[in-house]
Amino acid sequence: MKQIPVAILGATGSVGQRFISLLDQHPWFKVVALAASDRSIGQVYSKACRWVLAEPMPAWARDVVIVSAAPESIEARIVFSALPAELAKDLEPQFAKAGFAVCSNASSYRRAEDVPLLLPEVNADHIALVREQRRIRGWSGCITTNPNCTSTGLTIALKALDDAFGVKKVFAVSLQALSGAGYPGVSSMDINDNVIPYIGGEEDKVEWEPRKMLGKLNSHKIDLADIQFSAHTNRVAVIDGHTVCASVEMTHPVSPEVAARAMSSFQAHASARGLPSAPNPVIVLRDESDRPQPRLDRMTGRGMTTVVGRVRPDPLFHLKFVVLSHNTIRGAAGGSIYNAELLVSEGLL
Amino acid sequence: MKQIPVAILGATGSVGQRFISLLDQHPWFKVVALAASDRSIGQVYSKACRWVLAEPMPAWARDVVIVSAAPESIEARIVFSALPAELAKDLEPQFAKAGFAVCSNASSYRRAEDVPLLLPEVNADHIALVREQRRIRGWSGCITTNPNCTSTGLTIALKALDDAFGVKKVFAVSLQALSGAGYPGVSSMDINDNVIPYIGGEEDKVEWEPRKMLGKLNSHKIDLADIQFSAHTNRVAVIDGHTVCASVEMTHPVSPEVAARAMSSFQAHASARGLPSAPNPVIVLRDESDRPQPRLDRMTGRGMTTVVGRVRPDPLFHLKFVVLSHNTIRGAAGGSIYNAELLVSEGLL
Amino acid sequence: MKQIPVAILGATGSVGQRFISLLDQHPWFKVVALAASDRSIGQVYSKACRWVLAEPMPAWARDVVIVSAAPESIEARIVFSALPAELAKDLEPQFAKAGFAVCSNASSYRRAEDVPLLLPEVNADHIALVREQRRIRGWSGCITTNPNCTSTGLTIALKALDDAFGVKKVFAVSLQALSGAGYPGVSSMDINDNVIPYIGGEEDKVEWEPRKMLGKLNSHKIDLADIQFSAHTNRVAVIDGHTVCASVEMTHPVSPEVAARAMSSFQAHASARGLPSAPNPVIVLRDESDRPQPRLDRMTGRGMTTVVGRVRPDPLFHLKFVVLSHNTIRGAAGGSIYNAELLVSEGLL
Amino acid sequence: MKQIPVAILGATGSVGQRFISLLDQHPWFKVVALAASDRSIGQVYSKACRWVLAEPMPAWARDVVIVSAAPESIEARIVFSALPAELAKDLEPQFAKAGFAVCSNASSYRRAEDVPLLLPEVNADHIALVREQRRIRGWSGCITTNPNCTSTGLTIALKALDDAFGVKKVFAVSLQALSGAGYPGVSSMDINDNVIPYIGGEEDKVEWEPRKMLGKLNSHKIDLADIQFSAHTNRVAVIDGHTVCASVEMTHPVSPEVAARAMSSFQAHASARGLPSAPNPVIVLRDESDRPQPRLDRMTGRGMTTVVGRVRPDPLFHLKFVVLSHNTIRGAAGGSIYNAELLVSEGLL
Repeated sequence: MKQIPVAILGATGSVGQRFISLLDQHPWFKVVALAASDRSIGQVYSKACRWVLAEPMPAWARDVVIVSAAPESIEARIVFSALPAELAKDLEPQFAKAGFAVCSNASSYRRAEDVPLLLPEVNADHIALVREQRRIRGWSGCITTNPNCTSTGLTIALKALDDAFGVKKVFAVSLQALSGAGYPGVSSMDINDNVIPYIGGEEDKVEWEPRKMLGKLNSHKIDLADIQFSAHTNRVAVIDGHTVCASVEMTHPVSPEVAARAMSSFQAHASARGLPSAPNPVIVLRDESDRPQPRLDRMTGRGMTTVVGRVRPDPLFHLKFVVLSHNTIRGAAGGSIYNAELLVSEGLL
Repeated sequence: MKQIPVAILGATGSVGQRFISLLDQHPWFKVVALAASDRSIGQVYSKACRWVLAEPMPAWARDVVIVSAAPESIEARIVFSALPAELAKDLEPQFAKAGFAVCSNASSYRRAEDVPLLLPEVNADHIALVREQRRIRGWSGCITTNPNCTSTGLTIALKALDDAFGVKKVFAVSLQALSGAGYPGVSSMDINDNVIPYIGGEEDKVEWEPRKMLGKLNSHKIDLADIQFSAHTNRVAVIDGHTVCASVEMTHPVSPEVAARAMSSFQAHASARGLPSAPNPVIVLRDESDRPQPRLDRMTGRGMTTVVGRVRPDPLFHLKFVVLSHNTIRGAAGGSIYNAELLVSEGLL
Repeated sequence: MKQIPVAILGATGSVGQRFISLLDQHPWFKVVALAASDRSIGQVYSKACRWVLAEPMPAWARDVVIVSAAPESIEARIVFSALPAELAKDLEPQFAKAGFAVCSNASSYRRAEDVPLLLPEVNADHIALVREQRRIRGWSGCITTNPNCTSTGLTIALKALDDAFGVKKVFAVSLQALSGAGYPGVSSMDINDNVIPYIGGEEDKVEWEPRKMLGKLNSHKIDLADIQFSAHTNRVAVIDGHTVCASVEMTHPVSPEVAARAMSSFQAHASARGLPSAPNPVIVLRDESDRPQPRLDRMTGRGMTTVVGRVRPDPLFHLKFVVLSHNTIRGAAGGSIYNAELLVSEGLL
Repeated sequence: MKQIPVAILGATGSVGQRFISLLDQHPWFKVVALAASDRSIGQVYSKACRWVLAEPMPAWARDVVIVSAAPESIEARIVFSALPAELAKDLEPQFAKAGFAVCSNASSYRRAEDVPLLLPEVNADHIALVREQRRIRGWSGCITTNPNCTSTGLTIALKALDDAFGVKKVFAVSLQALSGAGYPGVSSMDINDNVIPYIGGEEDKVEWEPRKMLGKLNSHKIDLADIQFSAHTNRVAVIDGHTVCASVEMTHPVSPEVAARAMSSFQAHASARGLPSAPNPVIVLRDESDRPQPRLDRMTGRGMTTVVGRVRPDPLFHLKFVVLSHNTIRGAAGGSIYNAELLVSEGLL
């Protein structure tokens, strides 16, 4: 199979670095361009970027010369966007109009009615919005988005429960990793021996994004799921891996054992299985009393698997459990790549 | 005023060290004996103890010779107990029977019907149980207890809300400090770059202890408060200071502003004000978007004040907020000392 | 005694904050002005500043309106400078010319021949350079400087050894705290689960500054001490407190015990004793095998005392030991204040 | 090729876990037995072991039943020893006598005259001592050892310099990772926001072990290298990866560039190249000003490559540089496995 040329927008940041790392030796995609902000343009990647991953920078990336994040600078079929939201808002439509499939990690278009907010395991069918999007906007390309990193693992776990028993109310408290704030991101003076009980805009995202993903495709739009969320979001001194404590009220309450089984046996939508980045299994259940833990479990399934543990009764709702998801792999770059794979396999490229 | 002789049981552990630090230059109490486990007996304190506080060991403590934790080894009026629960269960009644007032940080008797579980700001009137306890058990001494460190700040904040508006349901998720696990406690291999989403027995305590403290004294016993709790408890890489994210449903819902005002203007029970360890104010409200934080706020009011912030609407219940409390000061040693002061001022010594 | 009005330049940064904290209730000095960069001017301090100290911001500072760092904006006798070196270079002479005594923490003038580089315990007599400085430069004010934070504790320990036995060669490797890099300073992504074996310009300072301070005042200038230094400097995940591992070759070798005694009995120059910020003792010797440690020992003597431990034989030179010094107190703000006190007591204001 | 059966002594500890992880899918070796202390015997490995590696436990290990660390319990050709030194002292000779090749990570026999202390890149020829050992002790098996983890990277770097220019004096200061202390090892209360400037017995090892490895095989024994060492060893809050700051005096001083080139072009002894665990290259030189760093560089060459950076002039000696080595891979389990591969390839099994 001939590889599909792809580009990365925002390639020097921490999510951009994950794109480069995950696309190294990707069976379908070949990175042909790296774009970043004005001050980096014209530099080779190894000079322009302060690499923060423990995995070394792939050798091919070192000497790539950074180009500007403009459609005319780039020849590719897919662009992966790790742009800040304010830039994404202007630039992503320019790329979509110019015929690129934009697989975006930015929040700018997650709430647009004709833009799919995708977790292929959960709502691969929502990708049908792309056709509507092209019709309405007259684009030859498209924009697809993946959710914020804290919603990711939580929504995957909830999907398994919602399919089986119906989910009505969710209380979620996150303990989020530093890499989610980018680089330089959180000052060491703010987080060593400390917790920051606030992440700007995050609670609002966690209370809304899962409702779209768990919603139903209804002809040309998504009916939001009738689930109520309450979220508290916190930053803790962890490099990678977001932990979420969740309590859930269900339409048809079941025992923790039955709920756990529903999660561990959960399968992705048929169209989302077998793609190169598809996690298998989608959810791993840990039965130790003190798992999942970010340092030990974040790389489960090469960082694409959602890890759930401590499934137990909740005195107020029905179930309590803990969800862990790798925030820059499943929750960011890996998620966008998985979306791109779905676009390809659905013939939407 | 002549100082009251006091002793510390479990003096070498991390809570025992806080007792020593807080009782240094206490206006009412003078430490006359330090007791610890067999392997320390006969050694001077500075040799027997691995001091873990940033404040230096008081000079007077260095050369105190450790005695055994037995009534016959100690001449004092009050014993502060930082014993492990299993030891406390046997030893504390021996001291109470022998005429000592035991002010305990251990969990062994918190649920006993005739033992007050005290936060003087919250339920100073529950100290009346001491008379019942003496009557029933035939003790000349007594046992009073303070709650577990995670319940402490949460219960103080809830008391302000319950008095003013009625509290019905509480979701609470903790991010707890390392010092709460004692010394050596948590392995560095378990917590660096990590979160442990489990603390043995803790969730059960947080779901029960506040109900007793917020309950009503009804002739000779406490009617548990009719409030439902759901708790998730987590360990994070913070030295001191427990953070709790709380969502609260109230009988009479009010705006976050009104709720915040009720908390910041909350006053301790009259009998609990003006004691040497009484926090003043009881609760400090922070209005920054990202506070309280353990490193910056734990020493508010010399570690005895409860700090609340981020009071905001909750989409599922009525209110969301964050509570911070110093776990080894207000939540442990300082709490026991405050209880002892209440015993003295109520003439129950 | 009427208090002397003082101002702080660079008041919003982490060293500026230490100045404010340490000058709270200072017996001689009263802060009358806070200056910071353009974007803060006109704001009240509590809004302009991201306070990073565990001690709360003094109440008086909250509503002080920030002024510009220019002589005409400030009425004071002393200005404490926590400016970045490049700004200090231009601004400090303007203040000195306008009659202010500038007590600077910046590196800009440490190597100027007529500017004293002061640790009052070590070289209080070097303050005589101020007269020469005024003569040469025609200033009514003056500039005094304190050394970089890593040199501070090391030089104090070496002074005790040099006076008694002569020091010839010094190997020094630092493990430096995060607060030394200011705020936001070091990214959490760079230091969690990590060490950064490089601090820009630092090794050069540690290899030169002690030679000036240990040098001799020779009529109107300092003869650098004939001691050779080799330094490696590292950043580690510690909030406050710089640890230095040192190996020392001496003219008159002595046993570790004799060397330790020389350090623990070291006294400041007579003119530097009894000042409000003077550490007493100057050096504390710890005899445990694993001390000093930054978290446990940095606040010794309210952060002004140098702590030394592990004095033992060195197989290559003569002595090995470990020095700890609080980098933003003794090594920065506290050092500048101590220098100002010396200026006052020497009648040089 | 038929796989050689191997066993692991001390399989549940943190080095034991690394053996299991590194031997997973090893081309030559197949783990047939896991031995641990009495309280684990009879349990399956997944229950007996608190797994602390970020890499998941290999599936085959989960259900292996732990046996006792005695020759009669184990059928294998090679035993890898991750035993504590006091146990290793008694047990390893029993295994050697019984015909096993013991590849030990313990310190017990490193200084024995007839036991090779091996880094195959450095002194593969010292393996000839095995024949002498068998002759003297009458063993059919043998003991080989690898050095302590701090000496490992340092010695490899020094070998490159010593071969080319002659090394005379070395000053070395370590910043060591937590995993080197095993599990539970260092208490989180001791290392969060802290440095521990002491590791029991470590400085003595770093000052002696390199001299044996850099020494010359002289008929039946090793003449220690005539190099003097001074070491300071420190524990810092890093999970894996020991950083060493080194200053070196050479017989034939060269510029940092020439020295760096000698290190980066250094090749292992011919007999040690091409083995499954052989690092290639042996040493990676980083030219950034702030590298190597443990989090970013420890996994270079799957944790077997030594990383050197900051090669620069030293004002006292000739060269300064920084060495990083993965302490539980190259410095422990990986080193023992590499030694075993050398034994096999030299026909000494």
